[in-house]
Amino acid sequence: MILEIAKKAKIASYELAKLSTETKNSALISMADALEENTEQILEANRKDVKASEAKNVKPALLDRLILNTSRIGTMAQCLREVADLADPIGQIVKTWTRPNGLIIGQLRVPLGVVGIIYESRPNVTSDAAGICLKSGNAVILRGGSDTINSNVTIGKILNETAVKSGIPKGAIQVIQTPERSVVQELIKLRKYIDVIIPRGGAGLINAVVENARVPVIETGTGNCHIYVAEDADLDRAIDIVINAKCQRPGTCNSTDKLLVSYKIAKHFLPKIITSLRNEGVEVRGCSQTKAIVHDVIKATEEDWYTEYLDLIIGIKIVKDIAEAINHINKYGTNHSDAILTANFNKVLQFIRDVDSAAVYWNASTRFTDGNQYGLGAEIGISTQKLHARGPMSVEHLTTTKYFVLGRGHIRE
Amino acid sequence: MILEIAKKAKIASYELAKLSTETKNSALISMADALEENTEQILEANRKDVKASEAKNVKPALLDRLILNTSRIGTMAQCLREVADLADPIGQIVKTWTRPNGLIIGQLRVPLGVVGIIYESRPNVTSDAAGICLKSGNAVILRGGSDTINSNVTIGKILNETAVKSGIPKGAIQVIQTPERSVVQELIKLRKYIDVIIPRGGAGLINAVVENARVPVIETGTGNCHIYVAEDADLDRAIDIVINAKCQRPGTCNSTDKLLVSYKIAKHFLPKIITSLRNEGVEVRGCSQTKAIVHDVIKATEEDWYTEYLDLIIGIKIVKDIAEAINHINKYGTNHSDAILTANFNKVLQFIRDVDSAAVYWNASTRFTDGNQYGLGAEIGISTQKLHARGPMSVEHLTTTKYFVLGRGHIRE
Repeated sequence: MILEIAKKAKIASYELAKLSTETKNSALISMADALEENTEQILEANRKDVKASEAKNVKPALLDRLILNTSRIGTMAQCLREVADLADPIGQIVKTWTRPNGLIIGQLRVPLGVVGIIYESRPNVTSDAAGICLKSGNAVILRGGSDTINSNVTIGKILNETAVKSGIPKGAIQVIQTPERSVVQELIKLRKYIDVIIPRGGAGLINAVVENARVPVIETGTGNCHIYVAEDADLDRAIDIVINAKCQRPGTCNSTDKLLVSYKIAKHFLPKIITSLRNEGVEVRGCSQTKAIVHDVIKATEEDWYTEYLDLIIGIKIVKDIAEAINHINKYGTNHSDAILTANFNKVLQFIRDVDSAAVYWNASTRFTDGNQYGLGAEIGISTQKLHARGPMSVEHLTTTKYFVLGRGHIRE
Repeated sequence: MILEIAKKAKIASYELAKLSTETKNSALISMADALEENTEQILEANRKDVKASEAKNVKPALLDRLILNTSRIGTMAQCLREVADLADPIGQIVKTWTRPNGLIIGQLRVPLGVVGIIYESRPNVTSDAAGICLKSGNAVILRGGSDTINSNVTIGKILNETAVKSGIPKGAIQVIQTPERSVVQELIKLRKYIDVIIPRGGAGLINAVVENARVPVIETGTGNCHIYVAEDADLDRAIDIVINAKCQRPGTCNSTDKLLVSYKIAKHFLPKIITSLRNEGVEVRGCSQTKAIVHDVIKATEEDWYTEYLDLIIGIKIVKDIAEAINHINKYGTNHSDAILTANFNKVLQFIRDVDSAAVYWNASTRFTDGNQYGLGAEIGISTQKLHARGPMSVEHLTTTKYFVLGRGHIRE
């Protein structure tokens, strides 16, 4: 059955690659309207999912990820409209040049073909991914988590029906409806039909995909993010930034999990920031030096430094200098988003160059790592690998190029 | 032991990322000089490899791939000098923009980190890959075929010693010297230390890597290439192009394996082209329609249409129209290099858009798919996948970007 879905997607992809920008945009706008017009139907499906998760006592931060409301559906629709507004990358001639022998060589931007998205929780991924794949001329196969299956199937059905009415080929947007996990294992091996798999979710999901896929994968999303507060940081602003980065939406990958603090300011800064964090309900775990200053923090284990909490928990470590901070981040981090707070520009340059992450921040919250926040329109995921795309991915990241070479009977000497 | 090599490469990669363009370029030029100065030593090692292969009776086209001579070593040195001449992509600010909230966002070009190259035969890969990886700030681990182990180890030793003398960190260029195949299996799973694996060689090697790797792979090289001769092609030029594409160096991936001919010109064109091919020693296999015109061609099997011959063999098929030609190429080809010969520009556009290959040609030999021929400098391989890079890959294709985000205490609303 998965094979049939994949074949259908491949056939659709050849047609999608030829569609005009106008056809794609008008479909996207109709899809946005359809989401808003069918808000009540989507909310009804979502309520089933929320109830089921509440019955399983999932953590509040995780529950937040799957809840829809009118405003969030409005945001989903708005994302589709923003994608419609983005330039169409397909058909763009990236560059051309002429060789001394007269051969004209160029690069043409084309869709990847068929994109498989495997995700957990957030149902807005269903429409964001469908929109970005459509705009970039790709067919998409969507496989969401079982905890949002009702929301995803309903959203997928609305989007697909609207798209087909707008002239998009059948098979361009497909949501896998079966809950069996084995379908994912099958899907990620279909190299002949699927051009890329993008997993979005926790470390477990992503590792399972990376370990078993034969289709090329773009690794996304695991975010064990750090903020390093240097001795010369503006400490009042530092408190605002840390609280925002940890608490504004703790279930997201770009929320901060670890705070690294210069030993020079630790005695002064740690009591303040720990009080502020606890006022927001954050559980604080610290290194032994942190415990020596604020005695009642929980002792952090070695495993803590590797962990993405996705919850109101933070780990605090005192470091000697920027070099130790950078080494710690490169060793324990997930190459996602990391920030330095400092008034010293040399430290900024060193941190940006040497921290091996998709997004590196100066005096700002890590929560900004997001396609919309970057102005890319909706986002298909945040790549934490180095190949193909790194950081928030949008329409252009779902394309590739081909060389075209124009001769006049050229043969190689 | 492989783990130690990988760790050493990772450590070197952090230092490589900080090197100045001048240091890298002067090392490359010294490495080029060292190859030429040690030509006799390299040829001596190469003679051992050639003798061993001759004793095994390998095909002439394959033997040609592993033979070195003074001229080919000169070409290797020249490639290193050309790489030195190329712009250094590292440190380039790809773009910057400012968000309405005042956040400044930019993309900085940085090395991938550690590149693993697994290749067969051609010993020039050793120096080409080492040069391109060095210029792009990457550490490289090279694993050539057992049939060129003496050549590779000698070339690697000369390059590495020269590089270290020029200020390049130890561990930047490493050639794996053990012949056991199990080392490759180990190497391609070291996700923590290796950022990308590039296999170069036959379909067997590439599939073995793709099937077993956990490190991201850039698939390269298998080239079952086609030329489609439309009814309006200049048939005299067509003969020159087909002979060049098939015979100029038949052991290479970009040589043509299949000839698709419009039925409208088949009776006239096939006897001529088949005579020309046979004059060059090419074995001709054909579809039943081809056999009906030139009776003594060998009947092509279904498997023939899928096969990259790497030898003086060609398969010929008569097709109804351009749509059949495109469908045949997309079904049986390897997404490498395919050409149309025609005087009809609409057909050119259709062929370029719809043939799903890394390089699509009009009125030129497929043999041009090559980094040097494209003016990219030396080439690290020809990607036949769609992610990250497609077609001939050079220095820029071994880089990635990171986002840097500059704030003034920005928090997310």
